[in-house]
Amino acid sequence: MNPGESLRRLRERKPLVHQITNYVVMNETANATLALGALPVMAHAREEVEEMVAIAGALVLNIGTLSPHWVDAMLAAGRAANERGIPVVLDPVGAGATRYRTDTAKRILDEVDVTVLRGNAGEVATLVGVQAEVRGVESIDAGADAAELARQAARTLGVVASVTGAIDHVSNGDLTFAIANGDLKLAMVTGTGCMSSAITGCFLAVAASPVDGAAEALVAFGVAGEDAAAVSSGPGSFHVALYDALAALDPDTLAARAKVS
Amino acid sequence: MNPGESLRRLRERKPLVHQITNYVVMNETANATLALGALPVMAHAREEVEEMVAIAGALVLNIGTLSPHWVDAMLAAGRAANERGIPVVLDPVGAGATRYRTDTAKRILDEVDVTVLRGNAGEVATLVGVQAEVRGVESIDAGADAAELARQAARTLGVVASVTGAIDHVSNGDLTFAIANGDLKLAMVTGTGCMSSAITGCFLAVAASPVDGAAEALVAFGVAGEDAAAVSSGPGSFHVALYDALAALDPDTLAARAKVS
Amino acid sequence: MNPGESLRRLRERKPLVHQITNYVVMNETANATLALGALPVMAHAREEVEEMVAIAGALVLNIGTLSPHWVDAMLAAGRAANERGIPVVLDPVGAGATRYRTDTAKRILDEVDVTVLRGNAGEVATLVGVQAEVRGVESIDAGADAAELARQAARTLGVVASVTGAIDHVSNGDLTFAIANGDLKLAMVTGTGCMSSAITGCFLAVAASPVDGAAEALVAFGVAGEDAAAVSSGPGSFHVALYDALAALDPDTLAARAKVS
Repeated sequence: MNPGESLRRLRERKPLVHQITNYVVMNETANATLALGALPVMAHAREEVEEMVAIAGALVLNIGTLSPHWVDAMLAAGRAANERGIPVVLDPVGAGATRYRTDTAKRILDEVDVTVLRGNAGEVATLVGVQAEVRGVESIDAGADAAELARQAARTLGVVASVTGAIDHVSNGDLTFAIANGDLKLAMVTGTGCMSSAITGCFLAVAASPVDGAAEALVAFGVAGEDAAAVSSGPGSFHVALYDALAALDPDTLAARAKVS
Repeated sequence: MNPGESLRRLRERKPLVHQITNYVVMNETANATLALGALPVMAHAREEVEEMVAIAGALVLNIGTLSPHWVDAMLAAGRAANERGIPVVLDPVGAGATRYRTDTAKRILDEVDVTVLRGNAGEVATLVGVQAEVRGVESIDAGADAAELARQAARTLGVVASVTGAIDHVSNGDLTFAIANGDLKLAMVTGTGCMSSAITGCFLAVAASPVDGAAEALVAFGVAGEDAAAVSSGPGSFHVALYDALAALDPDTLAARAKVS
Repeated sequence: MNPGESLRRLRERKPLVHQITNYVVMNETANATLALGALPVMAHAREEVEEMVAIAGALVLNIGTLSPHWVDAMLAAGRAANERGIPVVLDPVGAGATRYRTDTAKRILDEVDVTVLRGNAGEVATLVGVQAEVRGVESIDAGADAAELARQAARTLGVVASVTGAIDHVSNGDLTFAIANGDLKLAMVTGTGCMSSAITGCFLAVAASPVDGAAEALVAFGVAGEDAAAVSSGPGSFHVALYDALAALDPDTLAARAKVS
């Protein structure tokens, strides 16, 4: 895991990150992607997703405001990404809150070779069949052992599992990183989970391996959250400072600031 | 009416507020809901709205960027909310600007038991059949006696009418509150009307009565607007400060700061 | 070209600017329109676009997150605008990135009398059949002579071409303005191109001629970008300062600050 090296590479290569995401956070994940140094593109029409993903360095699927046409486009884009070896991130927003969300997340996991599943503990627990409390789409701590949950999700679902919370856990089934970067204020702004998925896509496009990229992304996003919290006084000013902090992330100090075990 | 007590209860219970709203303001109303202390969830698919609203403390319907599928979902969610006694807010954005908006707002009022109708004077006047000037979706003062308009809307439509403007008026037909909190800068940011509807939903989930909750919401939002105006120099910085101010609202002083008659 | 005079007129008349635009930037272009002094309205339903555009001072079509229903609505609204002599701006976001975007932009140019085509060099080059590098939707310099590209686009497509980049070029085929206002930070926030299209719509509603309005819009937006850059430290704070700067634009000094040749 080398977050500074990956960030440097990301800013040199500026990978295009194709995002089929929810209406609530599109602007936010596009701006987070751009602030970090990659290029976002949002495209959801069945008519163009396969062509768009073919020129991308990563694909991010997010079911936060799903509907049938969008799910069709996600599946088509995901399969096209698989054919070309382009990494795919799935953010199963609200899995467990309604059957439609749970079923759709499972369907995408079935029909697409998902590289990284990035969700909160309740969502990931739902998808591996562990009991969890889910209320709407905001993160509620599952209480369970999150490291074990990440490991189990990775093994059961054949993905890198990236389970975010007060401490984030990223696992490929064998190797598991616990990441303590971040700030409580991240929970006061909607879409920060979605941003972490978008940033995971950015890092996957340049990282040495999926488990490295997923962990590096959470280190980078967490450090930016810490920097933003230090200069803001509420959720509005924190939100603004977060983009400034992403753009100001320093590749030379990122590894030293990582709280990873 | 006890805005401080309701705000305290809201932050303890953190009600889930299901919003089927327009594309322009989704992020903004979600963040306002979260900053205040409640949990937002946006879900509009016919496949899941009934299940989602069943776990919510309130439902907010907003026709700001309506289309047929979304209207169907609003009606289904509204009926499901009614069956479970979950309060429903309707924001008839742009009623009067086009026939489709006017007809859709009327249809929702016909088919759903709306608890609170929150709109500007032009929109509400259109729905009670009073002459009004409406240009697009931004608020234009109707000129008419807004207190009387609120009372008439409440009686004619069988709702609590919440008519916002320089002075807000909230009426259940008998009791009418005039609320002078707020700041002119609120009109310089798009979606502040939609935010007030979302916050009305938050308060309805915890208030003693619909007319109390609707009035308390406008006091809280107005006070936050005053606080944000005091520290900002234009619409951009005001917008950011508004979320900080919502999060910083103090239940202990809210009643004392209410300008209600 | 008299940007100060047009801005003064815009703030007096407050034209309604109907925007059928992409999900990513709707809030941003609405807020830019409002900060400048005009009234935004977003409406995309086939059921209402013709009625809505009939009360507007300008129509802005933006294909940033296009899909078939939205394209139908754009064509209907464009034709209705043409019948009433209402100016139409087309922002061909991502033309050249996928066939669907290129074909849709061409189809709108064929079926609607577009007043101003506002795009980056890659997009405009694609539409006039010149070789260009396009990656997703973010602007990449075409390398070609942008002034010549604007002139050629104007003549070939029968529009005022507004090609933005480090230096913007606006041409009606005979007269060509080069505008050097702006700041590099504009490229660090998503949707600033879309904002410039929305502001072009605002100015078209009040300008002496389309070529004047298109150039005045870029002067005003560029000056606001300069002002925002002077008080911000990253993309987040720049984005916020941009709305403050648009609202603070001074009609009396705007002409003197224009860097036009």
